[in-house]
Amino acid sequence: MAPPSAAATISLPTVSVPACLHDCTASNRSSISSKRSGIDSSFPITTYEEGSDPIPLNWGASTAQERGPVVCSWQKSGLKTHNAIGAHAGGYSIYHALAVGSNQLNKDHKADYTNSEPQFQIKENPSWFNLKDIVSMDPFGHLSPYLYSGISEEKNVEIRPTIAVTKATLKLIELKEAVAEGRLVVDGKIVTNDQGDVSVSKVAVEPVWYLPGVAEKFGISEDELRKALFEDTNGMYPELITRPDLKTFLPPIGGLTVYIFGNPDYISDPSKKLALRVHDECNGSDVFGSDICTCRPYLMFGIEEAVKQAQTPDGVGMVIYFRKEGRALGEVTKYLVYNARKRGGDTADEYFHRTECIAGVRDMRFQQLMPDVLKWLGVTKINRMLSMSNMKHDAIVDQGIVIENRIPIPEDMIPEDSRVEIDAKVNSGYFTTGSIKQMDELKNVKGRTWD
Amino acid sequence: MAPPSAAATISLPTVSVPACLHDCTASNRSSISSKRSGIDSSFPITTYEEGSDPIPLNWGASTAQERGPVVCSWQKSGLKTHNAIGAHAGGYSIYHALAVGSNQLNKDHKADYTNSEPQFQIKENPSWFNLKDIVSMDPFGHLSPYLYSGISEEKNVEIRPTIAVTKATLKLIELKEAVAEGRLVVDGKIVTNDQGDVSVSKVAVEPVWYLPGVAEKFGISEDELRKALFEDTNGMYPELITRPDLKTFLPPIGGLTVYIFGNPDYISDPSKKLALRVHDECNGSDVFGSDICTCRPYLMFGIEEAVKQAQTPDGVGMVIYFRKEGRALGEVTKYLVYNARKRGGDTADEYFHRTECIAGVRDMRFQQLMPDVLKWLGVTKINRMLSMSNMKHDAIVDQGIVIENRIPIPEDMIPEDSRVEIDAKVNSGYFTTGSIKQMDELKNVKGRTWD
Repeated sequence: MAPPSAAATISLPTVSVPACLHDCTASNRSSISSKRSGIDSSFPITTYEEGSDPIPLNWGASTAQERGPVVCSWQKSGLKTHNAIGAHAGGYSIYHALAVGSNQLNKDHKADYTNSEPQFQIKENPSWFNLKDIVSMDPFGHLSPYLYSGISEEKNVEIRPTIAVTKATLKLIELKEAVAEGRLVVDGKIVTNDQGDVSVSKVAVEPVWYLPGVAEKFGISEDELRKALFEDTNGMYPELITRPDLKTFLPPIGGLTVYIFGNPDYISDPSKKLALRVHDECNGSDVFGSDICTCRPYLMFGIEEAVKQAQTPDGVGMVIYFRKEGRALGEVTKYLVYNARKRGGDTADEYFHRTECIAGVRDMRFQQLMPDVLKWLGVTKINRMLSMSNMKHDAIVDQGIVIENRIPIPEDMIPEDSRVEIDAKVNSGYFTTGSIKQMDELKNVKGRTWD
Repeated sequence: MAPPSAAATISLPTVSVPACLHDCTASNRSSISSKRSGIDSSFPITTYEEGSDPIPLNWGASTAQERGPVVCSWQKSGLKTHNAIGAHAGGYSIYHALAVGSNQLNKDHKADYTNSEPQFQIKENPSWFNLKDIVSMDPFGHLSPYLYSGISEEKNVEIRPTIAVTKATLKLIELKEAVAEGRLVVDGKIVTNDQGDVSVSKVAVEPVWYLPGVAEKFGISEDELRKALFEDTNGMYPELITRPDLKTFLPPIGGLTVYIFGNPDYISDPSKKLALRVHDECNGSDVFGSDICTCRPYLMFGIEEAVKQAQTPDGVGMVIYFRKEGRALGEVTKYLVYNARKRGGDTADEYFHRTECIAGVRDMRFQQLMPDVLKWLGVTKINRMLSMSNMKHDAIVDQGIVIENRIPIPEDMIPEDSRVEIDAKVNSGYFTTGSIKQMDELKNVKGRTWD
């Protein structure tokens, strides 16, 4: 079924020569500074439905205009009219607050988005216009300043994008080596030269949660979700409790980045062949090459395979990077687990137990929200899934997206010290084309121990 | 001046064979679940000094025991007795809340830290015991579960580490190439083999802010800081306003990771020679090799130089990675700026202006808190500073740490498309051993434009 056409409303403004139409730098510092002495009693510690007049926000509406903009700033006229809980840019809202508090940023700064429009069009599709498909990002987040500029002026509120669409050139030594060794060919379009430089289209996405939909994906009530988010964070955002009328929350967590190799229009075309790597952040390996896990090797394999797929006549490749460091437990917990593993003999049979002892769970990545971005992009079929994770596989298939083939990381790319992790995961359900070691065998899979 | 000795209290428990002393997995699910139906009226939307009995926390006290533990969980008996605002693990507290809310994690889970103790000792030094030197991390954060286990039991509160200390082996293709090309030699200890594998000691640190100290570093009052953090984040943590008696805040932002090459004891020894790279996160380059900036090239240069320094008889190397994506503006804003640059002709003279138009400032990284980790590690002198940033340099020198030499990234490591950034930064004050282009010359420094 075709979506109600919102094309007219979504057409982008024509791109013009940049002009900063106002003083972009911080101004009125003295006046801000004077306002900031003493306690401002006009500022409440939370808001209530009574006394509020939120700008309409109808998640899942049949047009972008009916849906309305996400407004979550209390500045300007936002205190009465904001329609979302939280703040823009995730945790970076704290740095924004430091900039305002130290009078280096005028809190009334009006962003000039001239020329910042998406570098390519994301095809709208039915998933943008219902309550079920997308609950953890704003389908119109890349267009909001342009779609809703009238409301921003009329209501005197800040309306910020939560998605940005650009393109780039990747210069990776792994790809340079792939070209030198003949695994990748230079085609002048995707692989642009013998240095292995690769052209890519990129999309950065910040989380925007529709709370009833998120609660449903976790199988709990909206009340239970709101209480947990408020209580377990020790009182972050009381509006989660006091504003049941506000259904949208921008949590202070990292988002995701989509890397598309080849023609972005192919992503949503089931007659094309998509190779996809869904990757969860692991800074220690992704950036620094720590050999205790397969993260960077699998990521580089994923990029190379995505590029190869994009070089086939009807192929396209995609890598999506999720900010979920250390299984969304954070790096401190991850290192504590490493220590317990290395001091405890580091065998594969104890691999998950070490994390459970410290964190109480083996994993907090919760893949059920991950497919939202695939729905947003219109993905219906994945020809080659460059992941062994059963959690990722099941979450995607549960959303009705077809996975035709699953591609494990090649054995020769698995660092010796990461056998403990990969063998434990395969035993627990990760996909493999090889053998599955049983518990008694996992006892004999040992990692490097400390001297 | 020698610090008051807290050595006795800081000695670690003897490391024993791991034993999970209780059921580590989620339990009592039904009872948790039943508690979670309907609104729990016993839970306030904020707390006040009246009715609270915080466990003493005396930042800067002369011993660890006088200082006391950071307690910021409202669970167990924490509601009345917590002494810090915020939650552990930064934004990952949101994932923790999802785990509890969906009954996959028992909120009363008691972490078993057996064998997770630091892998090497961080030498305590005077900076741990005063109010000025360290205001953005807990100097005892790596020892808290062990130092304060008695208080945790007695008061029935959760006391979590905010720092973890481990070691690892790095397997980076850039280092493999450095060995193959003879720039790095295999010594069997730091560079362990001809694949360029490198042994490293690592420290992950989560932010813990002493609010009066942070305010002072920004030149504003504590009231101004609290108001900005609360108001500009649209009402996050009302305790920032209602609990002036609580001086400590764990903000939902990313932390930092320290990578030490060679003997960690040399870091604080002024008779040794330290090479240091202070690196701010740039996922697009650090992980994916985007060629619009010098981030990964400078990081890899920093690692290689740190390793070389550690291979000299009296040398040690260190790289510190700060989670400040896109100048702490986040990746969405960064991509919007890329678009505005590329559509606007992308010349170096307009480089900073493009960011100011959208963000209102050119940078939100605020380096004044960065030196805290150097103070914590006891750094007094840096022989080779592997950074061109005047902001980083000035912040370090302002703290009384000596920088003997500044080492720019080699010209041949600068990707062509990143000349716009590097030339604009050098013009604005970044260190260089080369020439400084003036504004009229910067007009002619052009990046790749879109077809």
